[in-house]
Amino acid sequence: MDMIVVMKAGAIDDDVNRVVDRVAELGLVPHPSRGEFRTIIGAIGERTPEAQQQLEQLPGVDEVMAISQPYKLASREFHEADTILDIAGIRVGGPHVNIIAGPCAIESREILFEVGRAVKDAGASILRGGAFKPRSSPYSFKGRGKEGLEILQEAGRELEMPTITEVVDPRDVGVVNEYADMFQIGARNMQNFNLLLEVGKTDKPVFIKRGLSATITELLMSAEYVLSQGNHRVILCERGIRTFGNETRFTLDVSAVPVLQERCHLPVFIDPSHAAGKRDLVPALALAGIAAGASGAIVEVHSCPERALCDGPQAVLPNNFAKLMEQIKQIAEIVGHRVTPWGREDTQPRRAAAGGWGG
Amino acid sequence: MDMIVVMKAGAIDDDVNRVVDRVAELGLVPHPSRGEFRTIIGAIGERTPEAQQQLEQLPGVDEVMAISQPYKLASREFHEADTILDIAGIRVGGPHVNIIAGPCAIESREILFEVGRAVKDAGASILRGGAFKPRSSPYSFKGRGKEGLEILQEAGRELEMPTITEVVDPRDVGVVNEYADMFQIGARNMQNFNLLLEVGKTDKPVFIKRGLSATITELLMSAEYVLSQGNHRVILCERGIRTFGNETRFTLDVSAVPVLQERCHLPVFIDPSHAAGKRDLVPALALAGIAAGASGAIVEVHSCPERALCDGPQAVLPNNFAKLMEQIKQIAEIVGHRVTPWGREDTQPRRAAAGGWGG
Amino acid sequence: MDMIVVMKAGAIDDDVNRVVDRVAELGLVPHPSRGEFRTIIGAIGERTPEAQQQLEQLPGVDEVMAISQPYKLASREFHEADTILDIAGIRVGGPHVNIIAGPCAIESREILFEVGRAVKDAGASILRGGAFKPRSSPYSFKGRGKEGLEILQEAGRELEMPTITEVVDPRDVGVVNEYADMFQIGARNMQNFNLLLEVGKTDKPVFIKRGLSATITELLMSAEYVLSQGNHRVILCERGIRTFGNETRFTLDVSAVPVLQERCHLPVFIDPSHAAGKRDLVPALALAGIAAGASGAIVEVHSCPERALCDGPQAVLPNNFAKLMEQIKQIAEIVGHRVTPWGREDTQPRRAAAGGWGG
Amino acid sequence: MDMIVVMKAGAIDDDVNRVVDRVAELGLVPHPSRGEFRTIIGAIGERTPEAQQQLEQLPGVDEVMAISQPYKLASREFHEADTILDIAGIRVGGPHVNIIAGPCAIESREILFEVGRAVKDAGASILRGGAFKPRSSPYSFKGRGKEGLEILQEAGRELEMPTITEVVDPRDVGVVNEYADMFQIGARNMQNFNLLLEVGKTDKPVFIKRGLSATITELLMSAEYVLSQGNHRVILCERGIRTFGNETRFTLDVSAVPVLQERCHLPVFIDPSHAAGKRDLVPALALAGIAAGASGAIVEVHSCPERALCDGPQAVLPNNFAKLMEQIKQIAEIVGHRVTPWGREDTQPRRAAAGGWGG
Repeated sequence: MDMIVVMKAGAIDDDVNRVVDRVAELGLVPHPSRGEFRTIIGAIGERTPEAQQQLEQLPGVDEVMAISQPYKLASREFHEADTILDIAGIRVGGPHVNIIAGPCAIESREILFEVGRAVKDAGASILRGGAFKPRSSPYSFKGRGKEGLEILQEAGRELEMPTITEVVDPRDVGVVNEYADMFQIGARNMQNFNLLLEVGKTDKPVFIKRGLSATITELLMSAEYVLSQGNHRVILCERGIRTFGNETRFTLDVSAVPVLQERCHLPVFIDPSHAAGKRDLVPALALAGIAAGASGAIVEVHSCPERALCDGPQAVLPNNFAKLMEQIKQIAEIVGHRVTPWGREDTQPRRAAAGGWGG
Repeated sequence: MDMIVVMKAGAIDDDVNRVVDRVAELGLVPHPSRGEFRTIIGAIGERTPEAQQQLEQLPGVDEVMAISQPYKLASREFHEADTILDIAGIRVGGPHVNIIAGPCAIESREILFEVGRAVKDAGASILRGGAFKPRSSPYSFKGRGKEGLEILQEAGRELEMPTITEVVDPRDVGVVNEYADMFQIGARNMQNFNLLLEVGKTDKPVFIKRGLSATITELLMSAEYVLSQGNHRVILCERGIRTFGNETRFTLDVSAVPVLQERCHLPVFIDPSHAAGKRDLVPALALAGIAAGASGAIVEVHSCPERALCDGPQAVLPNNFAKLMEQIKQIAEIVGHRVTPWGREDTQPRRAAAGGWGG
Repeated sequence: MDMIVVMKAGAIDDDVNRVVDRVAELGLVPHPSRGEFRTIIGAIGERTPEAQQQLEQLPGVDEVMAISQPYKLASREFHEADTILDIAGIRVGGPHVNIIAGPCAIESREILFEVGRAVKDAGASILRGGAFKPRSSPYSFKGRGKEGLEILQEAGRELEMPTITEVVDPRDVGVVNEYADMFQIGARNMQNFNLLLEVGKTDKPVFIKRGLSATITELLMSAEYVLSQGNHRVILCERGIRTFGNETRFTLDVSAVPVLQERCHLPVFIDPSHAAGKRDLVPALALAGIAAGASGAIVEVHSCPERALCDGPQAVLPNNFAKLMEQIKQIAEIVGHRVTPWGREDTQPRRAAAGGWGG
Repeated sequence: MDMIVVMKAGAIDDDVNRVVDRVAELGLVPHPSRGEFRTIIGAIGERTPEAQQQLEQLPGVDEVMAISQPYKLASREFHEADTILDIAGIRVGGPHVNIIAGPCAIESREILFEVGRAVKDAGASILRGGAFKPRSSPYSFKGRGKEGLEILQEAGRELEMPTITEVVDPRDVGVVNEYADMFQIGARNMQNFNLLLEVGKTDKPVFIKRGLSATITELLMSAEYVLSQGNHRVILCERGIRTFGNETRFTLDVSAVPVLQERCHLPVFIDPSHAAGKRDLVPALALAGIAAGASGAIVEVHSCPERALCDGPQAVLPNNFAKLMEQIKQIAEIVGHRVTPWGREDTQPRRAAAGGWGG
């Protein structure tokens, strides 16, 4: 049953009949149940958000309660097993823990290669680097665009790491698709619905960060946008929400990890870097996320953060990243997970083998 | 002075010299002042967000404090007087109070004309109606697109009201520019920076709604994006922020009105409809905003809200809107403002007369 | 009906029977309704919070929805008309708008008398002044205690104004009851339940400020604590909630005014001073609250705020307070209210005449 | 230096001199530094919150920045090493990880003993149980009071576990001190300052939970209240803050753990039970907190939670608690900590040996 319409104590027969008729008119099957004190009308079928809002306004209606979730394709009910993606031969999701690392922005070929090599050696499996940077100030560095994408592609090939980069404009989906292996949808674009529709038309994995004040349901609805276009390769990422707290840049909502996993089948990552905003706090948050059961983390690393053009204060130094990776590996095992050991036999590129959603 | 670098109590000369050199390297003029207990270094000039982040990370630095605001063109320091826009002959901003009203979405020609006529008769001066609706669910009604824009243009012409409609995609800026008189940037797109840049390249007024969890500074930085492109016709709108409160859809931050007015010269509006989420609460919030000094409000009105395809529960009925307008007019006068009396002599269309930013 | 237990789609008969039995065991009357797809069990009677939590955990239960509110005595359902209190002859509540004003803390006899006289002349009807100040720092001025109460009582008598002062400790209820006319329960003590029980045992009006992060329901439950002890003279006050916003000390939730008025019969005030934290913003917030329909405001006024021992930055100067009062009077009338004109015939002390709750 | 007063660009000499004089009058040493564009005045000495507020209001002042923290005794600067408490022979703080467990409320002797035995066997070192329950509803079960304390004491003795229980009223500090080994100050009483002062006068450890919307600084100021009375045995606990999130009862701010540890020397615990509100989420949050470096957790366990009189939905079953303890032990070791192995040689009760703050 999709909705339950609870009538007011004083609702009259006309009110009940009006609701029953309207439920039917909305394409749902009405199931009225006249109790001693209240009448309750179940409405079965494909509910739309409009239907709920419309029924709420009818005379005699006290409340309309949604019983089922508003997302379908993202739901565990629809797809019970964890979705395990195959990204250039790397398994992502479920017990496979992957660490995405690299600099915030692609500033230069040198830095990207230096940092990329370091994070790969430490055990990261996917390389990050921003070419299009959404910045709150129009006067800030906004990334190197296509030139950055070329550097990223080159680094990914040389280091044999799949690459991820942010896309902020539906007009750039084509070019990003050409150069990178995964799309990142940033927190500020989580509800840029046309952008979600565009990446949903590609076959590249889409890594969606939770908006600063997005509820869990809203994040899943954004995933639904991508899934509804036929692209089932979606990863969700908790990256800190905005609260009254001002000691960290954002507040990492670590409970989002188990909550998302209970409700949906997609891989769930965390972003300790943006949540913390300060490098000293990144390891504690990264470990917390892995201990809570995340399938991975995305970590910003820079070899010379005091000269970084973007978010230097939150970038971890390469040697500290290596120490962190060791702890991540150990904690992952305690919770029954395992860090993807890039290059080992069991995770050699084997796109062909991937089945189901991860294909 | 743009920034103050406060050194730690134990900072040594080398630390201080390193900061001084770096301030200079960043294109700013360093002004060190060695106090008895702490050394403080002023940094004068055009600060970038990067510069602050980079200085913070240098050894011996305790804190880097920004003295000036990160926005310029939006600032009262830059433009002391209230910006009064001229929109098709209507004065908007400062003491001129304008009410924008109409249905949430343009559902049909009939409804838009019916509602439009009603709100004009009641005293609204600008007609709203959505053709591109950002919806959290991919399964919701998303507006009638270009067809909707055509209806809106027709209604605006017939009713002699300027029109406003939301644009959600940089690719649609051209078509919206063709049909509507004002761009609305919705809360979820407040930091869709490429969209802001696109509307900044037009000469149509841009009505920017505050994001669900955007700070006042972030809202002003988004205005700065538009202003920086040469379009100085920007209006800001408080529309409710996301808090722990769950009795209303969002929490109207009425203090945003005086805070924005103190910091910036642009007209400030409020949106009681989205903040409330329930029509019964709309009048109280609308009056609160006008009493707090807002230059206007944007109110959703529908003649048959229980059949509305979008946000029916928050739409006010036409007759209640008329009553609300009466109270708005009276309250505006008490705070030294005046509701723009569309059609009266002193506000007859006179584009030519408009000067300054409002031109 | 108090609760609706919605069973899961797959719930079996045993699950349903177990719930039915448990509902009965909890002293409620079960009303099962076996629908085609789901079974729903109404539970009628005096619900306790425990009952809901316990039912939620039973096998086969999907959700337990509370239909009625958890408060009773505070509810509009229980007492439909606005409660109008009679406080030393002043009518408080409903359309009677009263302004409580005075310094934050009682610092000296001179300042309290000077400010008191000024606010009375301007039209305030109740005098405020803190003798016990809850301060976040143990090193801050904490008020003058009993000595302060004596000064307050003296000022109230000389100025012929009822007085209000904060009580922070159940052990002080006796002494405050002796000297002041109204108890103020501060935001930080809104859930100091033993303190609520103590003031509930007196017959003095209790002015309860909403906690920094208290929901509307929680505020009403705190009122219920006082009401449940037999003291029905309760006033509620919205004073700003804690959000991510950092431009004001707190965020005035002006929508709390109509929401509380819809749900409950008690007078609703606002506190623009603590919400704003800066005197320049106080008038806008005060007017917003009155325009939204509040039955009054509590405003901090100081004749020399730059030497105040507590919250000087938010204290309004006496002459600005007088200007604000003029606007408050006008706005109150527009929304059908009226500022209590202390000393006029129709509000002469007449305790005897007061009936009902306000007696 | 305690504060930096930044003068406005247009401040004149008189403004500067007035500030300098006032700084001296406030008992601080002024250090003016007239820069080319701005004058900055350092103010050295024991700052009070009042002093900062008063200086802010002087003419020509742009901003007053606090350089040092407002707490002293709680600060790392004051006491660099981790405080390790000795509680009945158990070491608490720093690398010693202790798990406090037991039912929410002491409902009966049977349940407390049953749960106590189970959690002790699983490795918990301290027994919890509430005798005075702060409840948002006056109609809820509020604990068994003194009778509950007697049962708790008996259980602690029989199980050889120190006990912790909440105190909510300054009048109850004496009786709680008599029966329990540790005071718990609940989130709703974090700023019940008189209660803090009372427990500060005892010599029992005080476990302070962070308020629902308390900042880190406010939590430390509440600790300062206890410390300032001479009781240095304070433990801090992050228990979830109130945010817009509604999937969990509160949002566990796991970053509070490293932030508090950086700023202060006191042991930091987490409360996964109240944060989650649902037992299924408790393990993930508990592990996250331990991975983030917490010195312990407080976990609610119940043998029959569907009949619990308080917070049953968040109580973990004994067998699941035992599994959780195994993971906690392993994760603690990975981050260099160690779960206190109650009963082992190196932690045998040895009150005499305790030195420093923990004495």
